[in-house]
Amino acid sequence: MSQKLNVIKIGGNVLDNADNLERFLTDFALVPGLKVLVHGGGTIASEIGKKMGMEPIMINGRRVTDANTLHLVTMVYGGLLNKNLVAQLQARKCNALGLTGADANVIPAHKRPVEDIDYGFVGDVESPEKVNVEFLTSLAHQGIVPVFAALTHDGEGNMLNTNADTIASTLAVALSRQFEVNLVYCFEKKGVLLDVTDESSVIHHLQPSYYQELKNTGAIFAGMLPKLDNAFAALEQGVKAVIIGDAAELQDIAAGGKAGTRITL
Amino acid sequence: MSQKLNVIKIGGNVLDNADNLERFLTDFALVPGLKVLVHGGGTIASEIGKKMGMEPIMINGRRVTDANTLHLVTMVYGGLLNKNLVAQLQARKCNALGLTGADANVIPAHKRPVEDIDYGFVGDVESPEKVNVEFLTSLAHQGIVPVFAALTHDGEGNMLNTNADTIASTLAVALSRQFEVNLVYCFEKKGVLLDVTDESSVIHHLQPSYYQELKNTGAIFAGMLPKLDNAFAALEQGVKAVIIGDAAELQDIAAGGKAGTRITL
Repeated sequence: MSQKLNVIKIGGNVLDNADNLERFLTDFALVPGLKVLVHGGGTIASEIGKKMGMEPIMINGRRVTDANTLHLVTMVYGGLLNKNLVAQLQARKCNALGLTGADANVIPAHKRPVEDIDYGFVGDVESPEKVNVEFLTSLAHQGIVPVFAALTHDGEGNMLNTNADTIASTLAVALSRQFEVNLVYCFEKKGVLLDVTDESSVIHHLQPSYYQELKNTGAIFAGMLPKLDNAFAALEQGVKAVIIGDAAELQDIAAGGKAGTRITL
Repeated sequence: MSQKLNVIKIGGNVLDNADNLERFLTDFALVPGLKVLVHGGGTIASEIGKKMGMEPIMINGRRVTDANTLHLVTMVYGGLLNKNLVAQLQARKCNALGLTGADANVIPAHKRPVEDIDYGFVGDVESPEKVNVEFLTSLAHQGIVPVFAALTHDGEGNMLNTNADTIASTLAVALSRQFEVNLVYCFEKKGVLLDVTDESSVIHHLQPSYYQELKNTGAIFAGMLPKLDNAFAALEQGVKAVIIGDAAELQDIAAGGKAGTRITL
């Protein structure tokens, strides 16, 4: 039987708040077995950009990455946030190693083709088959925990700003060739809610038939649908379970407890 | 017999000039065998700091690293410069991996004790025995080329700004346990000069007796003495040769040619 491995993605609600981050890092360091951390950092990048006189460029609610913005996110995600996460995990005896998709060519990508909108230096990852699983497996065997910033590269010398959820699911699918992988998305709610205004309405277990039923009745918040579609796509490519939940409940989630929404086939 | 390995350190005169950097990276990618790159980046950090309204804080010509400066160098060295070097080496088919001393706890350090001057978040590295040579050897066996930013950590959650020359010599000494190591300092002259105004006066080979003679007669530029003392200290700890030379002559230096000043016991 393959070894278990958790791919855990954190977003802004963890990174932007010092107390949340402290708590999360302590919990993450205690998660037993093999694990990978993936982080974003958009809010902090925007704050630092403002100090440098840069305003975020948004089209249809999505960030455009011009050359200056690429420099900014390479600094903030790949340097400031990634290295501080590594140092703080090391202080908790978790042997962390900071990575982007460029390092050891772990996640090859290409610049998103321009169609209606030019998003600039944004990366679309190549298929999970192209991920350097051999290198990640070697790290796992050495007890080293990869910490991924949301950056990839195009193989032609350019870094690329890349969606952290996509990096997490690509890694989870790729690592499923070697390990039994759970993909954990930590976000700002306790899980997928039946009633978006009621934190006690968490759906504990979501399977394809129930998901279809909820979609048909319009019971799920529309903003969650892409995330859930991606979760089912990851499951179809070999990921064992996708769990969406609150970072504050990571211990319970990692132990296979009741916290969060567990999504399986 | 141990395998040969080159530890190559570049400074501002390579990083600050796009043409120099392109040429250097092409040459570095072509250096045969095992290799490690170490880079600084002070000038670029100062430029980006100015955009953020930060002036470098200098005492006796040395940079003081307060909390904001630490954030700045963590962003610039660990993110912007390191990841762009990695991406550009990947484009040249060199399987680069960006690192700081915090990643996989490769270079443990501690904050410099405050004596007359408080340099702030500046790292003094622990002894070379503490370097994680096992991890670096595993990378070497996988054909992966480490690219080090001039940052370490204190094991208590803080990154530390650390002299790039010191990181290079510490790595060179530590790796001498496993490999036959040459330590190459690329700088702005063609080598150690007998006459600092004459680039043709390069000392091709420097050994302890000749060095002592040159010191006694005051023939070497005083600013070079600490670098040379450190070079001899590295040799005494097992490094095979230290070469000080021009980045533009890296190919010749790596091939054991006549370029640069070759320092041996």
